[in-house]
Amino acid sequence: MLIVADENIPLLDSFFAEVGEIRPVAGRAMTADDVRDADILLVRSVTQVNEALLAGSRVKFVGTATIGTDHVDIDWLASQGIAFCAAPGCNANSVVEYVLSVISLHAERRGMANWSDLSVGIVGVGNVGGELARKLERLGFSVKRCDPPRAEQEEGDFDSLEEALACDVVSLHTPLTDQGQHPTWKLLDRARLDLLAEHQLLINSGRGEVIDGDALLERLDQSGAPTVVLDVWPNEPGISVELAKRVWLATPHIAGYSLEGKVQGTETIYRAVCRFLGLPARKKAGQFLPEPAMNKLAFTSSAEAVPAAYTAIRACYDPRRDDANLRRALALPQSERAVAFDNLRRDYPVRREFSSVKIQLKGTSKSLQDTFKGLGFKLKL
Amino acid sequence: MLIVADENIPLLDSFFAEVGEIRPVAGRAMTADDVRDADILLVRSVTQVNEALLAGSRVKFVGTATIGTDHVDIDWLASQGIAFCAAPGCNANSVVEYVLSVISLHAERRGMANWSDLSVGIVGVGNVGGELARKLERLGFSVKRCDPPRAEQEEGDFDSLEEALACDVVSLHTPLTDQGQHPTWKLLDRARLDLLAEHQLLINSGRGEVIDGDALLERLDQSGAPTVVLDVWPNEPGISVELAKRVWLATPHIAGYSLEGKVQGTETIYRAVCRFLGLPARKKAGQFLPEPAMNKLAFTSSAEAVPAAYTAIRACYDPRRDDANLRRALALPQSERAVAFDNLRRDYPVRREFSSVKIQLKGTSKSLQDTFKGLGFKLKL
Ligand SMILES: NC(=O)c1ccc[n+]([C@@H]2O[C@H](COP(=O)([O-])OP(=O)(O)OC[C@H]3O[C@@H](n4cnc5c(N)ncnc54)[C@H](O)[C@@H]3O)[C@@H](O)[C@H]2O)c1
Ligand SMILES: NC(=O)c1ccc[n+]([C@@H]2O[C@H](COP(=O)([O-])OP(=O)(O)OC[C@H]3O[C@@H](n4cnc5c(N)ncnc54)[C@H](O)[C@@H]3O)[C@@H](O)[C@H]2O)c1
Repeated sequence: MLIVADENIPLLDSFFAEVGEIRPVAGRAMTADDVRDADILLVRSVTQVNEALLAGSRVKFVGTATIGTDHVDIDWLASQGIAFCAAPGCNANSVVEYVLSVISLHAERRGMANWSDLSVGIVGVGNVGGELARKLERLGFSVKRCDPPRAEQEEGDFDSLEEALACDVVSLHTPLTDQGQHPTWKLLDRARLDLLAEHQLLINSGRGEVIDGDALLERLDQSGAPTVVLDVWPNEPGISVELAKRVWLATPHIAGYSLEGKVQGTETIYRAVCRFLGLPARKKAGQFLPEPAMNKLAFTSSAEAVPAAYTAIRACYDPRRDDANLRRALALPQSERAVAFDNLRRDYPVRREFSSVKIQLKGTSKSLQDTFKGLGFKLKL
Repeated sequence: MLIVADENIPLLDSFFAEVGEIRPVAGRAMTADDVRDADILLVRSVTQVNEALLAGSRVKFVGTATIGTDHVDIDWLASQGIAFCAAPGCNANSVVEYVLSVISLHAERRGMANWSDLSVGIVGVGNVGGELARKLERLGFSVKRCDPPRAEQEEGDFDSLEEALACDVVSLHTPLTDQGQHPTWKLLDRARLDLLAEHQLLINSGRGEVIDGDALLERLDQSGAPTVVLDVWPNEPGISVELAKRVWLATPHIAGYSLEGKVQGTETIYRAVCRFLGLPARKKAGQFLPEPAMNKLAFTSSAEAVPAAYTAIRACYDPRRDDANLRRALALPQSERAVAFDNLRRDYPVRREFSSVKIQLKGTSKSLQDTFKGLGFKLKL
């Protein structure tokens, strides 16, 4: 059993050493020669998986440790009877924590005593948006869910785009589509951006082109513009410096970049490979995760839930560092900016999720415990 | 033994109940009638202590739980043989922690791997500046000390103002004086502000008028202006909105507002009263401090000293919250701003010093331990 795999898939050996022989290859440089005698091919988004790569090979299973599948010719694989698996949702929680940290900063900046007084409209209620809605409701926020494709298919309780856009915070989590009944390309156009008022916060950590960049730039130059946070941008990596200047927090498409998210991508394809081969899947991401740099935070009976939560959230992840890094990259000469944007993603420092930190609570209130549980921290009472 | 005291002096009863009978009075409203039969008078900066208040009273000792003494007619007290004591340096460490947190944010914003690569010029090396220099050197920073009055009196190693102004960070800690050999009024005038370059950071947490506000405003509108952080302002509380807009971090004169600093002010006058009365001073501020909201942070062998230090510093104190609050206050109608500035000071939330947090380090490097010790955290190995 030969497994040819992108050498940058995290924990490749830990998961796959017992499954077969592993041949690690540079993902960007992978050729038909590299994969000819492979049984299983494991890739990331930098490898184009198509007829040119695989025709005439022995490959019977392709796994990509990513949520996206744009780099894979899924129809061709299906036509050849080659099994395929991606890792949808593997970094959903990472994005959710990004959004929660942004909302905490926004609430503090507005001088609110309680962040959950903010209403949140979620556009696109899939892996990320669904998990965000669940966490926010548990924390006491009122949430609107806008997902017309799901609303058409399911019974559930969904809201209109207009209702979502009327919330204090609007968070976008749709894929980018320009076909079908509900295309998302420039979904937030000039007219919809005009609906947003000064007190509102618009966060996009879905796909950049879901907002019309030119219209947003114009809107931000008018009075009464909303506060905007962008993790995804039109035209990445060559993003608009003018747009970045006008948004509150600007980050380089890293919302999903927690270590947990990356490792769960490997676990997902490992489980699919095991299923495909009829092997038991004994390994779990958790057992391979290194100790986090910070592993415990203790609060006392003097602590109040909201400020304590803010402290813990930001000790784990504060988007203002990523914002500062991107702004420095955008101050480089024009010709270097796109590469700098990509390098920020490539060299992203280890970021751990809330679940990696134990929160010790002695004699604290029930509401403190509920808040930390709702956020996904580990509790130690 | 009757003690008349400002009711807002923290821990008044805890310290003074055994010394005598305490009569608490509203500091701003204190009259000659209130103090006539007092033996000891304890005030804060809101009470004018002079002949009008004290003539004909029995008061033999005046203590002010503040570092400043502008509200006290010291010469008149001396002429009457009334003993006097203030609390110099009681909040020095609070200001030092403010400056350290600002420097950590600046280093991160500039993308520096190691904050101690910054050189720091300290202007005014008294209680605050001296403690800042000591901490910074222990953390490996190179420090310049500018203090002409001390340089004239002492042997020590002092630097010129020009040398201090050439450092990456310039931090002002002088009193405000317009007399004598080395007046500090508008010490940083147009010409000296012109010496500062774009990469430099200027912090003022001494007294506002030590910088020429109009000159600073002009300088900040030119290209290549330094980054500026102001805790103290010309013309407080009616500060310039235009100036605030152009500085990076704007805070409402709260650098010294830690709970520890406030309580040490009470301890200082308690000790002076005991000395005056020939009583043993058995009580210490530490024994009365409440448990802090966050009392422990644990790092592991995966932690690196500088990012871990930043996390701990900001979990204790992040000036960006005070900045956000002041900016909201300055967005109010002109007529409400000065009151809002004062209210931010009056209603300042409890802020604890680094020493209130235990840092648990298991299997971490010596450099991590040294860093946390140097910052003044309590270590638990
Ligand atoms: N910033 C990051 O680092 C990061 C990380 C992970 C995912 N993402 C992006 O976030 C988006 C969501 O990811 P996911 O894993 O939740 O995807 P998903 O497919 O699980 O969910 C997307 C949801 O959007 C809904 N949707 C489609 N068209 C819509 C429309 N017009 N209006 C409202 N809803 C619509 C779909 O019905 C679906 O429920 C994707 O675009 C993904 O690329 C970004
Ligand atoms: N922002 C706050 O919350 C806060 C808190 C505490 C103190 N302060 C202010 O900080 C300043 C320093 O406080 P401190 O307790 O260290 O005072 P301090 O008297 O102990 O020290 C002041 C030092 O400045 C020196 N100095 C005087 N003139 C100088 C000049 N022209 N150039 C350089 N140095 C000069 C003095 O020699 C002295 O060593 C004071 O103005 C105080 O009001 C502000």
